[in-house]
Amino acid sequence: MKIARPLPDYLVRRYHGWKATSYAENSAWYKRLAEGGQHPRAMVISCCDSRVHVTSIFGADQGEFFIHRNIANLVPQCKPDGEQHGTSAALEYAVTALKVAHVIVLGHSGCGGVQGCHDMCSGAAPQLEAQSSFVGRWMDILRPEYDNLPKADLPTRLRAFEKASVVRSLFNLMTFPFVAEAVDSGVLTLHGLWNDIGEGTLEQYDTETGDFKLV
Amino acid sequence: MKIARPLPDYLVRRYHGWKATSYAENSAWYKRLAEGGQHPRAMVISCCDSRVHVTSIFGADQGEFFIHRNIANLVPQCKPDGEQHGTSAALEYAVTALKVAHVIVLGHSGCGGVQGCHDMCSGAAPQLEAQSSFVGRWMDILRPEYDNLPKADLPTRLRAFEKASVVRSLFNLMTFPFVAEAVDSGVLTLHGLWNDIGEGTLEQYDTETGDFKLV
Amino acid sequence: MKIARPLPDYLVRRYHGWKATSYAENSAWYKRLAEGGQHPRAMVISCCDSRVHVTSIFGADQGEFFIHRNIANLVPQCKPDGEQHGTSAALEYAVTALKVAHVIVLGHSGCGGVQGCHDMCSGAAPQLEAQSSFVGRWMDILRPEYDNLPKADLPTRLRAFEKASVVRSLFNLMTFPFVAEAVDSGVLTLHGLWNDIGEGTLEQYDTETGDFKLV
Amino acid sequence: MKIARPLPDYLVRRYHGWKATSYAENSAWYKRLAEGGQHPRAMVISCCDSRVHVTSIFGADQGEFFIHRNIANLVPQCKPDGEQHGTSAALEYAVTALKVAHVIVLGHSGCGGVQGCHDMCSGAAPQLEAQSSFVGRWMDILRPEYDNLPKADLPTRLRAFEKASVVRSLFNLMTFPFVAEAVDSGVLTLHGLWNDIGEGTLEQYDTETGDFKLV
Repeated sequence: MKIARPLPDYLVRRYHGWKATSYAENSAWYKRLAEGGQHPRAMVISCCDSRVHVTSIFGADQGEFFIHRNIANLVPQCKPDGEQHGTSAALEYAVTALKVAHVIVLGHSGCGGVQGCHDMCSGAAPQLEAQSSFVGRWMDILRPEYDNLPKADLPTRLRAFEKASVVRSLFNLMTFPFVAEAVDSGVLTLHGLWNDIGEGTLEQYDTETGDFKLV
Repeated sequence: MKIARPLPDYLVRRYHGWKATSYAENSAWYKRLAEGGQHPRAMVISCCDSRVHVTSIFGADQGEFFIHRNIANLVPQCKPDGEQHGTSAALEYAVTALKVAHVIVLGHSGCGGVQGCHDMCSGAAPQLEAQSSFVGRWMDILRPEYDNLPKADLPTRLRAFEKASVVRSLFNLMTFPFVAEAVDSGVLTLHGLWNDIGEGTLEQYDTETGDFKLV
Repeated sequence: MKIARPLPDYLVRRYHGWKATSYAENSAWYKRLAEGGQHPRAMVISCCDSRVHVTSIFGADQGEFFIHRNIANLVPQCKPDGEQHGTSAALEYAVTALKVAHVIVLGHSGCGGVQGCHDMCSGAAPQLEAQSSFVGRWMDILRPEYDNLPKADLPTRLRAFEKASVVRSLFNLMTFPFVAEAVDSGVLTLHGLWNDIGEGTLEQYDTETGDFKLV
Repeated sequence: MKIARPLPDYLVRRYHGWKATSYAENSAWYKRLAEGGQHPRAMVISCCDSRVHVTSIFGADQGEFFIHRNIANLVPQCKPDGEQHGTSAALEYAVTALKVAHVIVLGHSGCGGVQGCHDMCSGAAPQLEAQSSFVGRWMDILRPEYDNLPKADLPTRLRAFEKASVVRSLFNLMTFPFVAEAVDSGVLTLHGLWNDIGEGTLEQYDTETGDFKLV
């Protein structure tokens, strides 16, 4: 069986365009990055959603952000049980090996994973309750926040749920001993953001008030 | 405790710069994306490494690629055991809900996760063997490939190991029933790539020869 | 004799304000920078002029740019004669020890050093011809460009002279063997910029045409 | 030969962001500065190190500080021999043409230039002794202070050496007749500072005790 296929033409053409322009103009920096290794200042935990580009929003270049992307930008609780935990592994590498100064959790509007979780919790998506549903089980991380949502119309509830996914992840981050230690000793700070894709606005979590405020 | 802190000034300034330029110039597209939802044509599974920007390499815009990033761009085997599997959840969402046409696994040179796995397998990093090592347990996915590495100098072995992480992930992708079905029915193709960061070259896995060839 | 005096109050107050705000919010990054050392991607050679802030223009944070500032952003020719050459020392450190990927020469409008050089060359400032004039002798670096200035009104000539200081510095950069080698092997690129302070515009030197063009 | 290359994309984007926000909001002030020339109140002599931003620490805006930056914030002795002396030229321009009221020498922790000088003096870096070493010859300015360092562990000695670079520069400042005259007639004061990058602390040289004290 041919497990892998050649890259589609349009991507091949674009790659050659990038190689002849952006790469050619910045090859010195690429070579330095290859030789010297990466020294990113921040880890970003963002959603896989194709509409969220953290590097654009922050004018970041190659080498600045160590980026983990998963469904709904979730961080599970620390569970060192010998199983495979991709998010925990990325976090451990960023904090203990790369020694980043910031971990930024970036949520966003219109998150399909969060909507799926709401459907599941409200009984509208029983298929997500199946043990075999990877999306359902992953969104279990966010599930405890469902009962805290405001009694309001669906768009308001979804927006609150998206922000809750950021806050829940921030609290779960602190369950990792290496995160808590770095935060306590002042070499790491955590940041919670939520991006409205259509409006281009960015809000950040304010620990004191528990609200999100426009940046 | 102040769990989250305000965003660093320089990122706030850069964000406002993006909002006033890139966002302002493309707000119509952002609003369309927000209203119509995402319709990405491909899922990319890439490393968290700060030096790998798949959107740059392929000139991708907001909305084109659904991107999952983890340590060493690994896909575990399908294991529907009710536990939290972030990579599997992202894959399930991309293939069954978003119905992407391509899944692209993108490896790269100088991968710290792959090097860590080589250290672990060769006995040079016993701390990665601990049950509590998230990086070690995550890299167990790649472990079986260690015995197939060529007897050669370390750089050659590491490069081969990085490419093996791509091939191993391609094979693991096929253990997911929804991936195998979509591939079999011709609505999904898989692609394996490896990027040399310093040289800017891109190689793709050729199923027939089992080798990687320059794109 | 009291050689040094206490810092003026207004600076003490501002410092305490910075410490309580910007430093406090970014202390994690400062601590990481202190522990891990600097890894700047670019060296900037800029004028001492108080109106030119390269970090503002490029949204740069602590750790990004290694910055040398002197009168008229000049680079002398390589002259390894055992004397003290501050600009050459900064350049050597940036390229050979820090291994920056870019050296950016940034000129600007209304440069007092360039105007002084024009006055000197046109006979209007004989005091700058004195051997004891540090400004005069420093501006000798630019002097050879005087004869190439267009026959035009003074503002046009001064603007051309300012840009010539950038181009002259670019050529002088290549007289340093370690610069030429790094450029030849593709790990360093040189860039020439000129900033109009009042208009906020930025122009870059185009090697092929020999002109400056708006960025 | 293409001596200069186009500016990297990410810097172009950031520049346009700055132009559309910071510049746009302050264009009146920029235009005033362009028309009226600069009238800085202080000259700062700081290190090129990417981690030291004197404008941040003192909340300085465009037009406030005339800034010279070189390796290890050193001022050589006055030597009007007709050669090119960049630091002396900057100093002459600031004091005699701009008539600044303060000259501030700002040292910092973790200075690579100072460490290199210590290595050179202790015999650990013979390559810095070469006549062709620009860094070595530049650091000769600090060399006489080596014998005065305390017999202590290396970190303590380096910190003392960093502060000695500030004091040595203050004394060298007074070898310039135009500085000594301005100081004597009360129109110029000198200030010596040392910044701990990680802790964000600032210490100033106290002439009476010969020590540095927290600001």
